[in-house]
Amino acid sequence: MSRGFYEADHDAFRDLARTFVERHVAPHLERWDRERLVDRDAWRAAGELGLLGLRTPDRYGGSGVADYRFRCVLTEELSRVGAAAFASGLAINEDVVAGYLTALGSDEQKQRWLPDMAAGNVVASIAMSEPGAGSDLRGISTTARREGDSWVVNGAKTFITNGSSSDVVLVAARTGEFEGRPRFTLILVPADTPGLTRGHKLRKLGLHAQDTAELFFDDVTVPLDHTVGEPGRGFHHLTAQLPLERLSIAWRGLAAAEAALAWTLRYVRTRTAFGQRIIDFQHTRFRLAELVTEVEVTRAYAESLVLSLNDGHLDATTAAKAKWWATELQQRVVTACLQMHGGYGYMEEYPIARAFADGRVQTIVGGTTEIMKEIIGRELAS
Amino acid sequence: MSRGFYEADHDAFRDLARTFVERHVAPHLERWDRERLVDRDAWRAAGELGLLGLRTPDRYGGSGVADYRFRCVLTEELSRVGAAAFASGLAINEDVVAGYLTALGSDEQKQRWLPDMAAGNVVASIAMSEPGAGSDLRGISTTARREGDSWVVNGAKTFITNGSSSDVVLVAARTGEFEGRPRFTLILVPADTPGLTRGHKLRKLGLHAQDTAELFFDDVTVPLDHTVGEPGRGFHHLTAQLPLERLSIAWRGLAAAEAALAWTLRYVRTRTAFGQRIIDFQHTRFRLAELVTEVEVTRAYAESLVLSLNDGHLDATTAAKAKWWATELQQRVVTACLQMHGGYGYMEEYPIARAFADGRVQTIVGGTTEIMKEIIGRELAS
Amino acid sequence: MSRGFYEADHDAFRDLARTFVERHVAPHLERWDRERLVDRDAWRAAGELGLLGLRTPDRYGGSGVADYRFRCVLTEELSRVGAAAFASGLAINEDVVAGYLTALGSDEQKQRWLPDMAAGNVVASIAMSEPGAGSDLRGISTTARREGDSWVVNGAKTFITNGSSSDVVLVAARTGEFEGRPRFTLILVPADTPGLTRGHKLRKLGLHAQDTAELFFDDVTVPLDHTVGEPGRGFHHLTAQLPLERLSIAWRGLAAAEAALAWTLRYVRTRTAFGQRIIDFQHTRFRLAELVTEVEVTRAYAESLVLSLNDGHLDATTAAKAKWWATELQQRVVTACLQMHGGYGYMEEYPIARAFADGRVQTIVGGTTEIMKEIIGRELAS
Amino acid sequence: MSRGFYEADHDAFRDLARTFVERHVAPHLERWDRERLVDRDAWRAAGELGLLGLRTPDRYGGSGVADYRFRCVLTEELSRVGAAAFASGLAINEDVVAGYLTALGSDEQKQRWLPDMAAGNVVASIAMSEPGAGSDLRGISTTARREGDSWVVNGAKTFITNGSSSDVVLVAARTGEFEGRPRFTLILVPADTPGLTRGHKLRKLGLHAQDTAELFFDDVTVPLDHTVGEPGRGFHHLTAQLPLERLSIAWRGLAAAEAALAWTLRYVRTRTAFGQRIIDFQHTRFRLAELVTEVEVTRAYAESLVLSLNDGHLDATTAAKAKWWATELQQRVVTACLQMHGGYGYMEEYPIARAFADGRVQTIVGGTTEIMKEIIGRELAS
Repeated sequence: MSRGFYEADHDAFRDLARTFVERHVAPHLERWDRERLVDRDAWRAAGELGLLGLRTPDRYGGSGVADYRFRCVLTEELSRVGAAAFASGLAINEDVVAGYLTALGSDEQKQRWLPDMAAGNVVASIAMSEPGAGSDLRGISTTARREGDSWVVNGAKTFITNGSSSDVVLVAARTGEFEGRPRFTLILVPADTPGLTRGHKLRKLGLHAQDTAELFFDDVTVPLDHTVGEPGRGFHHLTAQLPLERLSIAWRGLAAAEAALAWTLRYVRTRTAFGQRIIDFQHTRFRLAELVTEVEVTRAYAESLVLSLNDGHLDATTAAKAKWWATELQQRVVTACLQMHGGYGYMEEYPIARAFADGRVQTIVGGTTEIMKEIIGRELAS
Repeated sequence: MSRGFYEADHDAFRDLARTFVERHVAPHLERWDRERLVDRDAWRAAGELGLLGLRTPDRYGGSGVADYRFRCVLTEELSRVGAAAFASGLAINEDVVAGYLTALGSDEQKQRWLPDMAAGNVVASIAMSEPGAGSDLRGISTTARREGDSWVVNGAKTFITNGSSSDVVLVAARTGEFEGRPRFTLILVPADTPGLTRGHKLRKLGLHAQDTAELFFDDVTVPLDHTVGEPGRGFHHLTAQLPLERLSIAWRGLAAAEAALAWTLRYVRTRTAFGQRIIDFQHTRFRLAELVTEVEVTRAYAESLVLSLNDGHLDATTAAKAKWWATELQQRVVTACLQMHGGYGYMEEYPIARAFADGRVQTIVGGTTEIMKEIIGRELAS
Repeated sequence: MSRGFYEADHDAFRDLARTFVERHVAPHLERWDRERLVDRDAWRAAGELGLLGLRTPDRYGGSGVADYRFRCVLTEELSRVGAAAFASGLAINEDVVAGYLTALGSDEQKQRWLPDMAAGNVVASIAMSEPGAGSDLRGISTTARREGDSWVVNGAKTFITNGSSSDVVLVAARTGEFEGRPRFTLILVPADTPGLTRGHKLRKLGLHAQDTAELFFDDVTVPLDHTVGEPGRGFHHLTAQLPLERLSIAWRGLAAAEAALAWTLRYVRTRTAFGQRIIDFQHTRFRLAELVTEVEVTRAYAESLVLSLNDGHLDATTAAKAKWWATELQQRVVTACLQMHGGYGYMEEYPIARAFADGRVQTIVGGTTEIMKEIIGRELAS
Repeated sequence: MSRGFYEADHDAFRDLARTFVERHVAPHLERWDRERLVDRDAWRAAGELGLLGLRTPDRYGGSGVADYRFRCVLTEELSRVGAAAFASGLAINEDVVAGYLTALGSDEQKQRWLPDMAAGNVVASIAMSEPGAGSDLRGISTTARREGDSWVVNGAKTFITNGSSSDVVLVAARTGEFEGRPRFTLILVPADTPGLTRGHKLRKLGLHAQDTAELFFDDVTVPLDHTVGEPGRGFHHLTAQLPLERLSIAWRGLAAAEAALAWTLRYVRTRTAFGQRIIDFQHTRFRLAELVTEVEVTRAYAESLVLSLNDGHLDATTAAKAKWWATELQQRVVTACLQMHGGYGYMEEYPIARAFADGRVQTIVGGTTEIMKEIIGRELAS
């Protein structure tokens, strides 16, 4: 990493994170993949060690540290062992749902949820995508209608990270129209609310331990005070969180690429073929020189955006640039690294094989590469 | 496909192949993946329909048709439903082991194995790669020593396609040296020979239904008349089969890319986002225009090489060009097609997700892209 | 080149073409670049040797050979010495204007122009692009209005190959509307017609010997019998010639790439650095292996399209695929080959430097890469 | 540019630089290209305005500002008008020769040359490359032998920037061997020294105003006190300057890419085709989104390296990463931007056409991309 990005506090936090990962994550990865769920024990251990709720105010049980670099450290340590599924579930909790609640939640909502999320007792999910509408929020057809003091939610959501295991779901629902355009509202729905059912966990290409699922809402009724932010302003609220969400995914992309490179450097420095180390082939050295350069270049950019986020200056378009660039970089690096492992790169026991499958979702999730380019391009055209 | 490559006979054969695939392959793919094995029933059904032993002389139970285009048709039909695991196992039987036996086998060997292979009763494998030597044949350390009228084989092999289920294994073993360089011999080892044990099926990134395994040889003793070709000339024999083996993999790459494109065109022509069909976005159209072009360009090349093979003119270096080019094309096409599926591209129920994982091995198996470029480059340098 | 594409007749023609190029082209290239014009002597020498008017019927002074492979040979021989400017001017004469006249011209028009074009006495140009409309034909604003038995042409054209030196110009002019869409007519305008003036030769990045110019039409009056094809059907006529025009450019792209590779192979096999030949570096060998493969793959496709053209089966969309693919290939190959020449690659005395500048226009001229993809994409979307 | 890289002083300096460029550079570019030389007037004007000798200590007539950001500003302003030839000649003076003299020169040498260089009265060049040795310094065959109190230099150099016009040449010459490896010495040779002759200016693909030339040394005799640094330590001295030299080229690459993007954005926002602005095509927007992202990512890296250089922490390998990355980026960006200009992109009157030819040398000069990757790769392998 660049000279000067991290400081002593971050290094100390890294030691803590690494210990956590080695003890509570790495030994369980295979089992989690098989069981298709991350143990709650791991969440709770993370909570106990103070690795969760980093940006949550301390009066709600968090660390109250706005500095996103601590989150970066945790992501890096999870990536180092290939714990992409946990890292992505954790990001939903930390960067997304806790982010919304901290920024927009009522004091009562914060009291109810944030301390448990910071303790690892509560896992949250956010329900935006629908079978008929992926990155296109305006196509959302799940509705919430007001009945007295309640919202009554109906519809279906899909591709929901933490979907089958979450304790609370932040739902984006259509709650009317204004001047011909749909208005959305964000509503907290506890997972045990009658009428909310979960589909089976979706069988995915990778990220097997991440319990992605469909959610069905059939006259799900919650009090009006479960509204997060202002009614009808959901689209606006979502937009406000985009810089952080996109940077969160970008950083996972960068960290995954760096981890893949580290595994591969270790491999090619020891493995031999045709009588020499694989790294002694000029072609291998050149490819690695390219990958290392590209990763370092990307890190410089990502780091500068983290500092902007910390300062409150990161805008959604700049974050879109980081999102598509870093996740596409991840694809290039991971597939090239897999190739350098030869046949072993195709074996699940090597982390690079899992990283290849896990990482493929990154250019899709949180807005596809194409959506990002559309956003950037529109700004250029205006 | 190009005007004029296939003729009426191939079209008729395609009807047969398609019926077979729809009846005996497509409905079982998921189960095979789960059970990590292709049913013998499917092999036998293929045998009964005359889809196996295409190039095997008819006096040994085959069709005796040297024209490789029939094999191309079968590969295309299997690819159309995403049956990559079966296609690769079948290629080992047909293009590799049956190829060796037909070219080099004694009459007795042919009588014993070829009719059963053409009937789908016997599945064969070839054992070259070793834990310590992937693409580097000279690094093979499995030995066969002569004791009286027998070979006694010792060593370990890995990454063996059909490894756990095959009835007979064609083993490449070191049988001495000549002028300081190792000499290899090809030896047929029936799977029930004492001392031959199979490791567990390897957990792979994809191709789950293909039973890839390790094989261990512990004083495995077979008669000398199990030698295929001349003793000590194994390397030479392997080289002679390379054009066909490489073209076989290249064609699978092409066919997989074409199948992915067909699925994707279907998807983007019907799926909508932001109020229009996905194909109505200029970016999507441009990407598809690129992919379609690249696939058609590659097909022209591959077809010309099939005709060269039919004429007996295809050399190993030209086949190396097709091998790396077509399998790298496959990566580009499949990953771009997956992307166009958005979130659904990451779901196993969509064939594109499986094709992405299945296809990743193609630039590694049968000699990596790097080995191919080394071969081509050396010829240019000489 | 592929086994079997060329036959004995083509080989004989190649000997003739090569002699012509060595005697009448190669020694003059630098001067032509400096004078920014190809000598008429070279055109006439080509005519005398029977290298022009290949597809022109023999009763109009041509060879009357529909087989486009002879044109391919000539393009290859010109490319071998880097004569891109002459090759492109010649293609306008042969593949475009002679093509229109042969297909659509009246007997009188043919008599007047084709024999002189085949003899190299007349050089023709075609005037489509305008300052305000590049690839967008519907944006043409040059008009031809009927006055009695004449067309009166007014407007400006730009980027006209052979523009300053041509003896006759085939002009695309707007001659009315039909159901709200503009109608175009193709009109032959002899260069000495009053009112037709030429702008200065345009200073271009490369192709210095090709006299590209602007043309201005100020009440240029020609008899109605100078109409080529049917009045108002110009767009239709242009479309009918697209397969040949696009394939002509594609073939120049392929031939330029092959020439660049040949120069580079010669260079890296003899030039040394760090104590060995440049080709002895693995990276160089790999890059060349890639380039050679890509060129051969492209040749297979281009050859198959030439045969389709010969048979009358080549459609405009398929030709669009070849056009963008081969000209983009040309960019990749030429820039990589230049790089392998090190500092010498930047020196004009090396043909690779000129080929880099000359070739850059290829993805733009005759419809940009983007237009080609739009055409292909639209067909996919329909 | 990134928030926070430049400060108020740099902005003020930029105003000065911009005024200089608009008055003394932009109006003369075409003439300089034609005359193949940058006027001395421009150098002197730059000197008078305090734009030269930025890092030269003030007691030798410079500004004595170690902060490289001022140089970055000047490079950006020159790039904005496409003055690549002047920018590269100026970099030789400022970043290379003045750098050596400041770091290694004797007080007498500094007195004699630095004030005149800072005033624009003296233009310097550095003579390393030879006809038989490009990036391979160990292949240098120009020798300097000691005779009494003098060096007698013999040999030939090529590709010398400022070669025909420079007033003083810093020559790298072989002055013996040590333990079987050649030793080099850096020697200042005033241009009017007898025996030093210049070849004609080399005809290059681009950078026409930059007078690149061959130099011939025939018993060129200079006093021993013209030695720069220690005799026999030339290789070591050259290595010490590499971080700055590489970053200097990298920054020119970045600035050229940014300039190309700015010209292109202006073009596609105003130029129309098919009834809309070019930027209104989704494909154009996506390409621009990609290019803008890639340029911003690269800027973050380059900026972080400039700060490292300022702190004295930039190492040669990191600078090698920036060098190849930024100059390859430049190729991608410039060729894509040229394409977006359509036919106009090929016309010399558009700066993008000249930038394409000018910029092509950047991946070659100062160590090719391949040399950079070799350097990086070796460090990874060790």
